[in-house]
Amino acid sequence: MRDREPRPAHPRREQRQSELRVFGLHACLAVFRRRREAIRKVYLEKDRLGALREVIAHCVANRIGYRLLPGEELEKLTKSQHHEGVCFEVLRAPLQSLDDALAALRPDAPAWFAWLDGVGNPHNLGAMLRTAAHFGCAGLILPRDAGLGLSGAACRVAEGGAEAVPLIGIDNAERAIAGLHRHHFELFATVVRGGGDVFAEPLPKRAVIVMGAEETGMSDALLARCDRRVGIPGSGAVESLNVSAAFAVFAALWAARSRS
Amino acid sequence: MRDREPRPAHPRREQRQSELRVFGLHACLAVFRRRREAIRKVYLEKDRLGALREVIAHCVANRIGYRLLPGEELEKLTKSQHHEGVCFEVLRAPLQSLDDALAALRPDAPAWFAWLDGVGNPHNLGAMLRTAAHFGCAGLILPRDAGLGLSGAACRVAEGGAEAVPLIGIDNAERAIAGLHRHHFELFATVVRGGGDVFAEPLPKRAVIVMGAEETGMSDALLARCDRRVGIPGSGAVESLNVSAAFAVFAALWAARSRS
Repeated sequence: MRDREPRPAHPRREQRQSELRVFGLHACLAVFRRRREAIRKVYLEKDRLGALREVIAHCVANRIGYRLLPGEELEKLTKSQHHEGVCFEVLRAPLQSLDDALAALRPDAPAWFAWLDGVGNPHNLGAMLRTAAHFGCAGLILPRDAGLGLSGAACRVAEGGAEAVPLIGIDNAERAIAGLHRHHFELFATVVRGGGDVFAEPLPKRAVIVMGAEETGMSDALLARCDRRVGIPGSGAVESLNVSAAFAVFAALWAARSRS
Repeated sequence: MRDREPRPAHPRREQRQSELRVFGLHACLAVFRRRREAIRKVYLEKDRLGALREVIAHCVANRIGYRLLPGEELEKLTKSQHHEGVCFEVLRAPLQSLDDALAALRPDAPAWFAWLDGVGNPHNLGAMLRTAAHFGCAGLILPRDAGLGLSGAACRVAEGGAEAVPLIGIDNAERAIAGLHRHHFELFATVVRGGGDVFAEPLPKRAVIVMGAEETGMSDALLARCDRRVGIPGSGAVESLNVSAAFAVFAALWAARSRS
């Protein structure tokens, strides 16, 4: 076996790994507005023809296939009841590099990134993308080894936010932190216990909001490398906020402070 | 047909309407901690026996039935894959009256309510209950005619928050608003467009955060009766925040201001 050449991946399969089925009306319209060249195929229910008139015209003009499907078929295709009558097969946007994202910032302008250390639930990822887009996040930093990727479900929940916020893949956390520090970003570890009160902490002009996984939080190694630890004090009636609710609070506070 | 007596509801069916299947570990443990007399029956997977030792002891001492079930059976019972190995059949907590909730407040102490005008998605309701519990909400006001009720799914997502925040049923919005005003509460309509900037508005010591339905917002009649309109300014990259993310931001800002 050892001397055998690795079998070339089946071309169709390879293509499918680089593609994504985006569904939900806002999610699909965001792809059309921002990245229509990535659309490979369009599926829709008949009663969506009105809302998607421009999309269909684009398909016709550019010889992109589109197909009317009944709701049940869309449900099978998207593996979701929440397809909202439309699904696009799109090429995935390539992950951006952190160096490129940092280079694209206006020097000294306020900016913030989110760093997700293992958030696993696609609904939480989608909700965080929507929040990140609303508050003008410069990018969502994802360690490549965490295996977190964008799914159709996350795109739907993001309501278009997935097209507005670059996903940044990093291979080496140390290198990423050094790059962020060089550009005057402070890393805020968000923690349930033992952090400073986020309502009282002065927030800097450039911040990275680091969020851990839903159940287990962030890795100890990453926690140790963050510049500060902050939490959202509460009544104690529940153990913590949901990760996407906490993220909304951190992002809102940072956005409010950086404007004042 | 006209002269026929209404058929009495089947006693078993009636009982079931007053009961709720709560599932998820934190949700069930919160019932056990705060309202164990409401537990009618306990279902659990074998490997939850350790985490639920106290619960089982309570069942044995009080002759409450408990039953070990495999995961697939729990999935059928709860209609969810997210049962986390445990389900309680519990008596629903009765809705509280607004008058009682207002009378229970310390005079002049800061306090806040949430008023949900038609939030329909159980995951959003659950997320908002968790957030409300975290920030010490005095109660979730629900118009009875909106038909919004607590489901097992909402309880699970609330992670125990459903037991910490009273649900307040109201029949008459005008009467409720008059009662709130008498107790010096201001009603904040949360809107996507045309509201004041929530980061700039002075928030009062007593506030009601009024949230509309996911797609349609709140009713015009209720909007007209609110004292102020506030929104969360954003980049415009997405149309709005998710209703539960927006709620987290409003609740956090109110909690922060009332403490300072």
